[in-house]
Amino acid sequence: MNVVILGCGLVGKAIVHDLSIHSTADLTVVDARKEALVHVKTLPRVQLLHQSVNDERDVEAAIAGADLVIGALPGFMGFEVLRSVIRAGKNVVDISFFPEDAMALDDLAKERGVTAVVDCGLAPGLSNLVLGQAIVEWDEVQVFNCYVGGLPRARTLPYEYKAVFSPIDVLEEYTRPARLRERGETVVREALSEVEHLEFPGVGTLEAFNTDGLRTLLQTVDVPDMKEKTLRYPGHAEKMRLLRDTGFFSPDPVEVRGGKIRPLDLTARLLCAKWKLEEGEEDLTVMRVEIRGRRNRFDVSMKYELYDYYDVASGITSMARTTGYTCAVTALLLLDGKIAGPGVIPPEYLPRNNGVFSAIMTGLADRGVRFNVNGAGS
Amino acid sequence: MNVVILGCGLVGKAIVHDLSIHSTADLTVVDARKEALVHVKTLPRVQLLHQSVNDERDVEAAIAGADLVIGALPGFMGFEVLRSVIRAGKNVVDISFFPEDAMALDDLAKERGVTAVVDCGLAPGLSNLVLGQAIVEWDEVQVFNCYVGGLPRARTLPYEYKAVFSPIDVLEEYTRPARLRERGETVVREALSEVEHLEFPGVGTLEAFNTDGLRTLLQTVDVPDMKEKTLRYPGHAEKMRLLRDTGFFSPDPVEVRGGKIRPLDLTARLLCAKWKLEEGEEDLTVMRVEIRGRRNRFDVSMKYELYDYYDVASGITSMARTTGYTCAVTALLLLDGKIAGPGVIPPEYLPRNNGVFSAIMTGLADRGVRFNVNGAGS
Repeated sequence: MNVVILGCGLVGKAIVHDLSIHSTADLTVVDARKEALVHVKTLPRVQLLHQSVNDERDVEAAIAGADLVIGALPGFMGFEVLRSVIRAGKNVVDISFFPEDAMALDDLAKERGVTAVVDCGLAPGLSNLVLGQAIVEWDEVQVFNCYVGGLPRARTLPYEYKAVFSPIDVLEEYTRPARLRERGETVVREALSEVEHLEFPGVGTLEAFNTDGLRTLLQTVDVPDMKEKTLRYPGHAEKMRLLRDTGFFSPDPVEVRGGKIRPLDLTARLLCAKWKLEEGEEDLTVMRVEIRGRRNRFDVSMKYELYDYYDVASGITSMARTTGYTCAVTALLLLDGKIAGPGVIPPEYLPRNNGVFSAIMTGLADRGVRFNVNGAGS
Repeated sequence: MNVVILGCGLVGKAIVHDLSIHSTADLTVVDARKEALVHVKTLPRVQLLHQSVNDERDVEAAIAGADLVIGALPGFMGFEVLRSVIRAGKNVVDISFFPEDAMALDDLAKERGVTAVVDCGLAPGLSNLVLGQAIVEWDEVQVFNCYVGGLPRARTLPYEYKAVFSPIDVLEEYTRPARLRERGETVVREALSEVEHLEFPGVGTLEAFNTDGLRTLLQTVDVPDMKEKTLRYPGHAEKMRLLRDTGFFSPDPVEVRGGKIRPLDLTARLLCAKWKLEEGEEDLTVMRVEIRGRRNRFDVSMKYELYDYYDVASGITSMARTTGYTCAVTALLLLDGKIAGPGVIPPEYLPRNNGVFSAIMTGLADRGVRFNVNGAGS
């Protein structure tokens, strides 16, 4: 078996590590940045492919021999590459946070006989998965609230933040209007809006604000109240709003001393430098998912909480662990024929496959990624 | 008599208004922006000169017939123009907040027989004046603390600030290292540092932070403890520090998408739009000067407080009133032969001229700009 991993960034690297341990497949790792490939070159059964995947021909060449493709690219290039992979007839598990609608590729995937699991990380990813399981098991799901964030363990002013994935995708989260669902209606709020403070045992107070995290859930499930909020140390959102409201996030060019510049480009440049997670710098991941509904004619609720930390032994970040291992475990299940296709499969559909929900949860637990689960009602 | 006013911005305009009422001189108002000149064109004895003063020849042409020149230009062009005026042999009163050392022009002024009163606004200006008066009257001045700020009356988030003078000069205040004097030594602190909260009756709590406001005082007076801090509504300095510490105030070009840009240029562009004081928008000025020392072998202290507000009748801002009227009153005293020269005269030297301190204070009171003065000791 041959698995081709597109992208060897923070998360891609963790996926390669994991598959080199937990599978016997040959692994081809593709990245245009030589310095990114260095991190995985000594792993067993790993072959490096130093090339870009900027156009369809590049993608086809890179994945020609693949039995399965894993997409771990930054959001801005994720969708185009995913389409190329599907068009080439390869099964794929993807974690890139692209702005386009993944479900738009469903017809193409069916036509090509491809199973494409998308948004298969932490959130989107695990958050969709636990909701999907409730939808399968319960009579009715009424409420889905997801709070999630990746944070540095050391809180350094002014931002108390480090980008635990592609920094340009973080800025994207702060600018994309956030869609949520209230009483059955989809409503749109500004990113960074409706800041609230929540307590997380052992971590302390975090702030939660609206981001556009529901994605496929807005069209795939019929839950009347849904929201996803991003978690940060308190004060972060206000600083980001200051930058945004001053115009620093604007993609519209302004004239400055004869030249033209998009303020967002300068801001990304400056913040990426400030937010760079240094080699060995420790992060943590916090997620809380609340689901409420009806089961056997009783009101029921479930609360999933995840606290995950940087792995000192391997040097793999918590965000890479929680995102990458979800992707890796799912990839192994797909290789194993446990996930029915073809089509575009968002994680909320995975529990429709018998045993897949518990297989993913068990696989994650084996890797030290464990949920605290509390249920109430019958 | 002919007075030439260089610059018809927020403050220049107020000076022209005042001189058209309080003197019989003919007034020539020079500005490169036609829209700036519109504001004064119907005033008596006013002649408009629509031209720039970018080089020495322009300045000479503009001031050829002047008995006195008033400099009311943005800081970045103030020093060069002042030098040209002195070189042309014209007496001058200047209020531009330039970064260069005005005293460096003293020799030139003496050589040309010119009296040049510099920094003749609010602070620098009135603050130096009251210190100079204490130096004349007391045996010894030990402490000089000045807190000063121009603020919008309506507090609008996020900045709760409007630029009551040239916005680029405001950013300059936030970046120039602040020099202060402690126990006889000149020390340098970051701009925006050492934020403290102070109470101002009727205004509320304001924050005060270090800015480089002592200027000529660092070389003209022998006071062992001196500081000048800028006043803003609480929270402003932290936001400015956020921008500065992220790199948005940097004058060093960075590469962004092939082009090069100085982050400061983009920031000035964006903040000027946010901070524009709209026509009719009300401002206020707050200043507190504390002076302590010895007089007749007793410890003495004086506290000057100024609360000045936008003038609804004339539409003249408080910052223009307090800055411009100080300049106008001083200009009239200079025209009247009350100020001895030649040389560069910072406001702290003005009280050496008999009667000038009280003449300025009376002139300001006539225009509604009044200090509350509290003294203690003998």
